[in-house]
Amino acid sequence: MIKVGIIGATGYAGAEIVRLLQGHPEAEVVWYGSRSYIDEKYSSIYGNLFKLIDAKCMDDNMDKLSDEVDVIFTATPQGLCASLVNETILNKVKIIDLSADFRLKDVSVYEKWYKIEHKAPEFIKEAVYGLCEINRDKIKNARLIANPGCYTTCSILTAYPLIKEGLIEPDTLIVDALSGVSGAGRGAKVANLYCEVNESCKPYGVATHRHTPEIEEQLGYAAGKEMVINFTPHLVPMNRGILATEYATLVKKDGKLPNESDIRAAYEKYYKDEYFIRLLDEGVYPETRWVECSNYVDIGFKIDERTGRIIMMGAIDNLVKGAAGQAVQNMNIAFGLKESMGLEIVPCFP
Amino acid sequence: MIKVGIIGATGYAGAEIVRLLQGHPEAEVVWYGSRSYIDEKYSSIYGNLFKLIDAKCMDDNMDKLSDEVDVIFTATPQGLCASLVNETILNKVKIIDLSADFRLKDVSVYEKWYKIEHKAPEFIKEAVYGLCEINRDKIKNARLIANPGCYTTCSILTAYPLIKEGLIEPDTLIVDALSGVSGAGRGAKVANLYCEVNESCKPYGVATHRHTPEIEEQLGYAAGKEMVINFTPHLVPMNRGILATEYATLVKKDGKLPNESDIRAAYEKYYKDEYFIRLLDEGVYPETRWVECSNYVDIGFKIDERTGRIIMMGAIDNLVKGAAGQAVQNMNIAFGLKESMGLEIVPCFP
Amino acid sequence: MIKVGIIGATGYAGAEIVRLLQGHPEAEVVWYGSRSYIDEKYSSIYGNLFKLIDAKCMDDNMDKLSDEVDVIFTATPQGLCASLVNETILNKVKIIDLSADFRLKDVSVYEKWYKIEHKAPEFIKEAVYGLCEINRDKIKNARLIANPGCYTTCSILTAYPLIKEGLIEPDTLIVDALSGVSGAGRGAKVANLYCEVNESCKPYGVATHRHTPEIEEQLGYAAGKEMVINFTPHLVPMNRGILATEYATLVKKDGKLPNESDIRAAYEKYYKDEYFIRLLDEGVYPETRWVECSNYVDIGFKIDERTGRIIMMGAIDNLVKGAAGQAVQNMNIAFGLKESMGLEIVPCFP
Amino acid sequence: MIKVGIIGATGYAGAEIVRLLQGHPEAEVVWYGSRSYIDEKYSSIYGNLFKLIDAKCMDDNMDKLSDEVDVIFTATPQGLCASLVNETILNKVKIIDLSADFRLKDVSVYEKWYKIEHKAPEFIKEAVYGLCEINRDKIKNARLIANPGCYTTCSILTAYPLIKEGLIEPDTLIVDALSGVSGAGRGAKVANLYCEVNESCKPYGVATHRHTPEIEEQLGYAAGKEMVINFTPHLVPMNRGILATEYATLVKKDGKLPNESDIRAAYEKYYKDEYFIRLLDEGVYPETRWVECSNYVDIGFKIDERTGRIIMMGAIDNLVKGAAGQAVQNMNIAFGLKESMGLEIVPCFP
Repeated sequence: MIKVGIIGATGYAGAEIVRLLQGHPEAEVVWYGSRSYIDEKYSSIYGNLFKLIDAKCMDDNMDKLSDEVDVIFTATPQGLCASLVNETILNKVKIIDLSADFRLKDVSVYEKWYKIEHKAPEFIKEAVYGLCEINRDKIKNARLIANPGCYTTCSILTAYPLIKEGLIEPDTLIVDALSGVSGAGRGAKVANLYCEVNESCKPYGVATHRHTPEIEEQLGYAAGKEMVINFTPHLVPMNRGILATEYATLVKKDGKLPNESDIRAAYEKYYKDEYFIRLLDEGVYPETRWVECSNYVDIGFKIDERTGRIIMMGAIDNLVKGAAGQAVQNMNIAFGLKESMGLEIVPCFP
Repeated sequence: MIKVGIIGATGYAGAEIVRLLQGHPEAEVVWYGSRSYIDEKYSSIYGNLFKLIDAKCMDDNMDKLSDEVDVIFTATPQGLCASLVNETILNKVKIIDLSADFRLKDVSVYEKWYKIEHKAPEFIKEAVYGLCEINRDKIKNARLIANPGCYTTCSILTAYPLIKEGLIEPDTLIVDALSGVSGAGRGAKVANLYCEVNESCKPYGVATHRHTPEIEEQLGYAAGKEMVINFTPHLVPMNRGILATEYATLVKKDGKLPNESDIRAAYEKYYKDEYFIRLLDEGVYPETRWVECSNYVDIGFKIDERTGRIIMMGAIDNLVKGAAGQAVQNMNIAFGLKESMGLEIVPCFP
Repeated sequence: MIKVGIIGATGYAGAEIVRLLQGHPEAEVVWYGSRSYIDEKYSSIYGNLFKLIDAKCMDDNMDKLSDEVDVIFTATPQGLCASLVNETILNKVKIIDLSADFRLKDVSVYEKWYKIEHKAPEFIKEAVYGLCEINRDKIKNARLIANPGCYTTCSILTAYPLIKEGLIEPDTLIVDALSGVSGAGRGAKVANLYCEVNESCKPYGVATHRHTPEIEEQLGYAAGKEMVINFTPHLVPMNRGILATEYATLVKKDGKLPNESDIRAAYEKYYKDEYFIRLLDEGVYPETRWVECSNYVDIGFKIDERTGRIIMMGAIDNLVKGAAGQAVQNMNIAFGLKESMGLEIVPCFP
Repeated sequence: MIKVGIIGATGYAGAEIVRLLQGHPEAEVVWYGSRSYIDEKYSSIYGNLFKLIDAKCMDDNMDKLSDEVDVIFTATPQGLCASLVNETILNKVKIIDLSADFRLKDVSVYEKWYKIEHKAPEFIKEAVYGLCEINRDKIKNARLIANPGCYTTCSILTAYPLIKEGLIEPDTLIVDALSGVSGAGRGAKVANLYCEVNESCKPYGVATHRHTPEIEEQLGYAAGKEMVINFTPHLVPMNRGILATEYATLVKKDGKLPNESDIRAAYEKYYKDEYFIRLLDEGVYPETRWVECSNYVDIGFKIDERTGRIIMMGAIDNLVKGAAGQAVQNMNIAFGLKESMGLEIVPCFP
């Protein structure tokens, strides 16, 4: 039985790890770290777990925690994991960090977009970017896994095969994305109050959102060159879900656009054996409701011959494949378990 | 492996049975009956099941179906199950009927409240009312199980111990209940369009809702006498969930009102070993979010010494404990399986 | 032109006064008091007013303010108005207080339910309870108007004629009410975050909600005796709206229950000339969507002969008739204007 | 007093015309045409108008209607207006058609995208495209006004000045748009049921949506050449609102990208005196909540120097500026009234 500690267990992502591990046969949470709720019963904060979890919240002492568990999930604000991690700890446990601290390989890019100093740049090189479907082999032996962002997971997986196969022009990529409100976290902010969000939608972080360089770096590896893209996130009134609609100019071969089966073949090449990726039938496009509460990534596309562009669309549950689910998937890989263990959840609709 | 057939598999309750049985180790659906969608792929209607279910929808021929399965769930409009059932079929399979056809013992009450003629009154006596926590023993050997209504499950379980123990005056009981929109089904009606329901709430079926006699009959058994109650359902803008707020006058003993521990003892007496019932701590009241997607029933209460009344509150997920989940629970009991099999689902929040 | 000052102009109720007075021909806001946002442009907080209001937020100095305006609306937390008001100010301006400070005539009841000391008990006697349809005459000459609570406005108006006419037993009254989330205000609290409220409903303040004594006091005047009632508010996921469902035992005359036309006659007697009260047709019940953004009160009822009870139902927009709209209505009455001025708004649907 | 007839008065757009004209001092509805509800009271369908409108629904006989009114609004499915209109009628009344029948100048484009035969191509040339801010002069004398689509109004107005001034490359324009559910109309379709739409978002009509050629035609006039664009609409769970996020490559001048003030100057040039257009401050982007229930168009933009693109964003209320409000604005222009008459509505928030 893998012993799990969570730092940030009372945020939405942390709570989703808790929910998922309740159904995991080989892992159990033994440390519910939450600085704000120390000594309070976990189930008094998350009533869905009443009668299921009796434990109380603990502090976020990573040194002590690393003696008691096999893996630590840090579901905390940017900067915290980097300020806590050290060689001694990494020799004892694996760390799966849900923050952005170890996602970007270039520390100056991190500091520019996040506007904070990086406290542990010495671990950046070692850290593995935990996008499971792309980096599976590296994850197996990683001590420090940088769990990808929610928007980035969806955005990258939706475009990856077409970039890798040279079917689209990398620099024409535009990612327009919608997110449910849980992505904003559980902090008490006026902007996230029910009445401020309900019955409205809005763009935010336009041309400045911090998931931009993460998408650019990872897709740049696939393209074999540096990329710059436009990424515009929008907040929409729903609890969960991310939908990415991505536009790119198709690369002609012999003067002809790739067709439906060319594109489908590229997706199949990379994803046909992937448990969590569902390539939708022709004419069917992703909807967030079909992946809710699950670790699935639904992908569809449409070629527009009039403009020579392709529209790629992907949907995930931001708290599952976009955060906690992928974190558990990373744990499964890193501990040699069946990758889908505890994650074979049927999406819940309606 | 129990072979399951569903008639009405594309309604919300039917689809929830499908979702739940995907995770059930001892049962599998082999017949997705849906008159409206014959020969269409089930997953083209419920995209959450894409890649998980490959089957097509079938007709609702119960004779034929009864040769192929061990149990039939009828998740159909009132009257259909009664029009299809017969002795031959019941000798081959068990039927768990999610409609109201066999819930009321008095056929004239059925015909008065439902305004349709009962087509199979000869089976009413045999049918077992499938409120698992109350009727477990009778369910074990039943051929025909009348799965309770959503409002009724919640209303009855919330008040049952206090009526049974004589702690409240039966005829003072008032049930005021709220329901999410999935309770109205998947029929294409203007009244259930998004814009008609969103940003509003309304009472309906005031003093005429058909779950009224069902609550009265079952609680009447507990009271040991006929009861009449007020029941007012309201529609609120959310997908799932029922919340019942119930009022009754407390019975004084020796001139004194029962206190918190008297009431708690009564609930404990009946529910302390019930897996799916969670009696909340003092001062904590049910919220539908804490039971969403699960089979739990959350119950809380408050004594008001000023008025001498008690306010009892219960919450369920109308599609799970209020329909499909209880139906699967009934199947588990009737087939001698562990009662919670396939239903040990952690509520999904947010 | 009446000059208006608002203290608490950036809360939801304050902002609604601003919205309503934008369309009022005889009043204009000249002071947008908001301690938290001093010197910020009002329209940077409420973007709906961009290009319509250029003013900046000011402090809440009531002494200074009372020299510059004719009327002050205090849309502030309990206790603030009482701590600011004095004879000098009341000699210069009228005050319409949207908090509870002057609603209850018995200061000990106030202090018991609100758990704060009353800072200006000397003005309680003078203050007029501003439920316009009931207290119109007293409001005309009032200096200090206690604007009623949202739940109370709806609850009282729905039951008032039947209590006044002796058609129902006062002590059997149970008020079960639903509210949209704007009633909880614009404070940054976890409990009011989108994801905490959406897709759920819950009771709160069970048997302890502070609108209880306000309803009891006012309906007690109608009954001619002290009353105790049960009042249970619920939070439902919508921005605006209150729906009250009220139960009471009908008083028999000569052994017979009052009938539909007896009840209708009672409502007509008090409300037939009321601009803002709409008594619905038989069999039609209130829905909050039909009053949204307006000052209307919709009322319907149903006699249940089986139980001898009546179910009375009322709906209002909590921010309009439940707060800002009634405050403007009070201003209109107190300044001798047409009572509906600026309030003849068609409800906005969907 | 202008006498108004509405054909399709019980759809959402028709009902919104009714709501708006209730507050219009110079126009009154005298004919509530609704084939589905003939002889039913209008307020029994739209309860918000109870006590305000006593009229019953009438048929859609345009010949008869044209004798009784000065202007007819057709808020009907595609094809109906074209099948009813004729010279005799147009000699008696003005027609403002909210369907697409007369929006496109090329009948073959209409027939290709709408897949129906055009029944009155002889009036296409005469019809004026009623985008008020662009075509004001032509609207003044028009007999037949083609009221623009909801997405198109928002999409065109957001990009128009930059295309007109040559600041962006026309063929790089990508319009990604979000819409509330009222845009789908009031038809009883499963796809628009509450539970199907709530807690989800989805793209639809990808590369095939019928507002595409309308945007292309109108922006093509501004560009001075034919344009092809990508347009992707998405359905999001809210009642009202359209948000368009538009991407285009900026045109360099002397090797330099236009800057914030260049762009702002272009918007100001066309919109600075427009009552209904609000150009937001730098760094502020449109949100649908700020325009709800009103006729405003909020516009913001962001230059991305990294990619050389601009992101333009616009928000409207789809039922007001996107349908009924613009129709009333067109009526005001066509009848020589003040253009904003009856439309000076403060957006309602929350």
